[in-house]
Amino acid sequence: MSVPAAEITSIVDELRAFLPERVSTAAAVREQHGHDESYHRTAPPDVVVFPESTEEVARIVSLCARHRCPMIPFGTGTSLEGHVQALHGGVSIDVTRMNDILEVNAEDLDCRIQPGVRRKQLNEYLRDTGLFFPIDPGADASLGGMTATRASGTNAVRYGTMRENVLGLTVVLADGRIVKTGGRARKSAAGYDLTRLFVGSEGTLGVITEIRLRLYGIPEAISAAVCSFGSLAGAVDTVIQTIQCGVPVARIELLDEVQMDAVNRYSGLDYPVSPTLFFEFHGSGQGVREQVETVGALAGENTGGEFRWATRPEDRSRLWQARHDAYYAAIALRPGAQGWPTDVCVPISNLAECILETRADIDASGLLAPIVGHVGDGNFHLSFILDPDDAEELARAEAVNERMVARALDMGGTCTGEHGIGYGKIGFLNREHGTEAVSVMRQVKQALDPGNLMNPGKILP
Amino acid sequence: MSVPAAEITSIVDELRAFLPERVSTAAAVREQHGHDESYHRTAPPDVVVFPESTEEVARIVSLCARHRCPMIPFGTGTSLEGHVQALHGGVSIDVTRMNDILEVNAEDLDCRIQPGVRRKQLNEYLRDTGLFFPIDPGADASLGGMTATRASGTNAVRYGTMRENVLGLTVVLADGRIVKTGGRARKSAAGYDLTRLFVGSEGTLGVITEIRLRLYGIPEAISAAVCSFGSLAGAVDTVIQTIQCGVPVARIELLDEVQMDAVNRYSGLDYPVSPTLFFEFHGSGQGVREQVETVGALAGENTGGEFRWATRPEDRSRLWQARHDAYYAAIALRPGAQGWPTDVCVPISNLAECILETRADIDASGLLAPIVGHVGDGNFHLSFILDPDDAEELARAEAVNERMVARALDMGGTCTGEHGIGYGKIGFLNREHGTEAVSVMRQVKQALDPGNLMNPGKILP
Repeated sequence: MSVPAAEITSIVDELRAFLPERVSTAAAVREQHGHDESYHRTAPPDVVVFPESTEEVARIVSLCARHRCPMIPFGTGTSLEGHVQALHGGVSIDVTRMNDILEVNAEDLDCRIQPGVRRKQLNEYLRDTGLFFPIDPGADASLGGMTATRASGTNAVRYGTMRENVLGLTVVLADGRIVKTGGRARKSAAGYDLTRLFVGSEGTLGVITEIRLRLYGIPEAISAAVCSFGSLAGAVDTVIQTIQCGVPVARIELLDEVQMDAVNRYSGLDYPVSPTLFFEFHGSGQGVREQVETVGALAGENTGGEFRWATRPEDRSRLWQARHDAYYAAIALRPGAQGWPTDVCVPISNLAECILETRADIDASGLLAPIVGHVGDGNFHLSFILDPDDAEELARAEAVNERMVARALDMGGTCTGEHGIGYGKIGFLNREHGTEAVSVMRQVKQALDPGNLMNPGKILP
Repeated sequence: MSVPAAEITSIVDELRAFLPERVSTAAAVREQHGHDESYHRTAPPDVVVFPESTEEVARIVSLCARHRCPMIPFGTGTSLEGHVQALHGGVSIDVTRMNDILEVNAEDLDCRIQPGVRRKQLNEYLRDTGLFFPIDPGADASLGGMTATRASGTNAVRYGTMRENVLGLTVVLADGRIVKTGGRARKSAAGYDLTRLFVGSEGTLGVITEIRLRLYGIPEAISAAVCSFGSLAGAVDTVIQTIQCGVPVARIELLDEVQMDAVNRYSGLDYPVSPTLFFEFHGSGQGVREQVETVGALAGENTGGEFRWATRPEDRSRLWQARHDAYYAAIALRPGAQGWPTDVCVPISNLAECILETRADIDASGLLAPIVGHVGDGNFHLSFILDPDDAEELARAEAVNERMVARALDMGGTCTGEHGIGYGKIGFLNREHGTEAVSVMRQVKQALDPGNLMNPGKILP
């Protein structure tokens, strides 16, 4: 169902007439827009266009709709399940030039931004206001992409995911209509929740062109610490008990021994090579002391050692940079290899069992695959470090991944806590939600994009 | 578009054949199912049916769909914008017999219930587990109704609304399909967020037959207090500063002097007749002390007097019962009158201005209308206490309500923070969301209920 070459030629001509300097068909640009950070094969779009406003996006979308041409919104390309691949060719709509912070309402703890704004850019901008935006998926992703994939990351255990932190959106629909959803009120019971419908829709229902986000005051006190454990089970049990005790921990991250070895090598650190938790505590001075005391006691009962503290901002940054570099550190373990990251999320009471069985399965399969996780949410990742041209190795990884997803679903979990479906996990959607719920998703898609032009081939099997 | 009498007769016959003891056409039963707690006129259904399972609901819905007969889900009838009125006749599907608590997972802080379970019943059941469900709209509503109207109430400032606390649903769609949404994982990026689509859909997209809810540990320390203020502005400014300081207050409720007078008379209390805040603080013992200290200082700077404390559970219950009885207390101010409650929600920085202008408008219009509010969210209510048969008085109230909604929308707020649209606020939906967004809502409705059989005449203009 790709678009005939002659049709593409007229689309490019029309785009060039409209935005002369901001249309590219160069092979390198198309190649860069045809893949994300995963191992999924590149599928370049026919053309890339760089709009600067909602109105320009609407005009591009109307033009593509008229030619029945697929459109793929593109932010930073840091997704992990093939979200931006142009599986049927078409136009990549790159929003990185739409990177203005349009307003910050410090009193109301909200802001309005364009979708190309990156999370680090936003927090840099906010620094003098005493506010911050907590959602942190690791990569310096665009907020548009984070909204589209319902991203979360290390802070979600305390602050929620993009689901809880997007107050409203401007979206260009497949027919060029510009729709505004949500508003500035903290809550509303006025009509269907269109905001949440677009959050996590991965570009398949429209192009996000503005986002209103919730902000938070920078806490009075922040402390971060690292604690090594005698066993993976001990580390995971510490997490489970922390959550069950209601400690409002801001981050609680697990790295298994394979991952700690990688991090030490990559970031020049000297942590023990054993299952490790990275913590961050936010609150008042006294509140943080209380949290630390509780968690320290729980860790001590579960094979945990001493806490190594990072209280100065620069030490905390180093600590979290090491955590964020975990994926690159893992890839560096095997020169020439590529990473295939995958994630699941389970109810917290099943977390230990799910991680331990998965670790045993990886080891039995002879693969290299460190485990890291936003374990406070019951969410963990593994990154297969493999040669994607080795069909046999890839098949072994696929089998481990399928068994991990099946295990998570059997435990009442989800096939992806935060990476999204893209096309990499499309095969699991029916199994997770049932064919009836997936048929409802398809009806919504059909209603809003009857020509299947918005990021076709993603989410819906 | 009501259903012909002959058709109703065959529907009743078929329902009786299927559920012999659980179908009623008695005038009193129809009347009771034809109105909520607002002043909106009664519109009785043709028949009321009392299913006990998802499968029975599915069979009822299929039967109605075959006869093209409207269906109105019914919980406790405590809604406030005419949500349950059978505007086009049809079948009221009363879920109060579906009141089983199906599972509680204390370790994972979640539970699964039928929609007829009431919030007090759930908290009674949970008591021994050390957990509670915080959403508290005042009325002892069914959780099905609370889900359908996206309810919130006094605790929402800390714990969120039904939007944040429903993990998953079972819904019977207009064609009888049974759909399961969401899951037990704390977060998921797997496909469209159907759960949030049904939360707040007011029975217009399907009948909710099971709900999975998030639970919370009962805090170590709880303290409640009442504080009187020299001015309404002082009380509201205390709220605004409390929220902006990030104090994790659990409840912060405003009652103006008209409402305090009503509460004193109704509940036999002796609070000063002046603008008053009701607070509740949750946390560790030390955490609660810190919150109290901060809020006490803010109140003192804003015309606030001493805090009157209620720390024992029975004293707290008395205090919150008085708050919850505010609506009935207001109605009792004028024997023979009826209440017309309405609510809006604005960004917190606009709250003082919005409340003060509204108070002045009420006073200028010569109406009796106490103001109460979940002001920590920027949400406030007023209850017109009036004679609904007095067309002139009703018109004055309608004008004040329209101006209040217009004021809230101009300030970036919403026409309803928590009551919902029903048919009472249907005229404001386009103004709030714009015709494009409303057209998207209509497309979703059309896709899932093409015959417009699910609670017709509600939400969509």
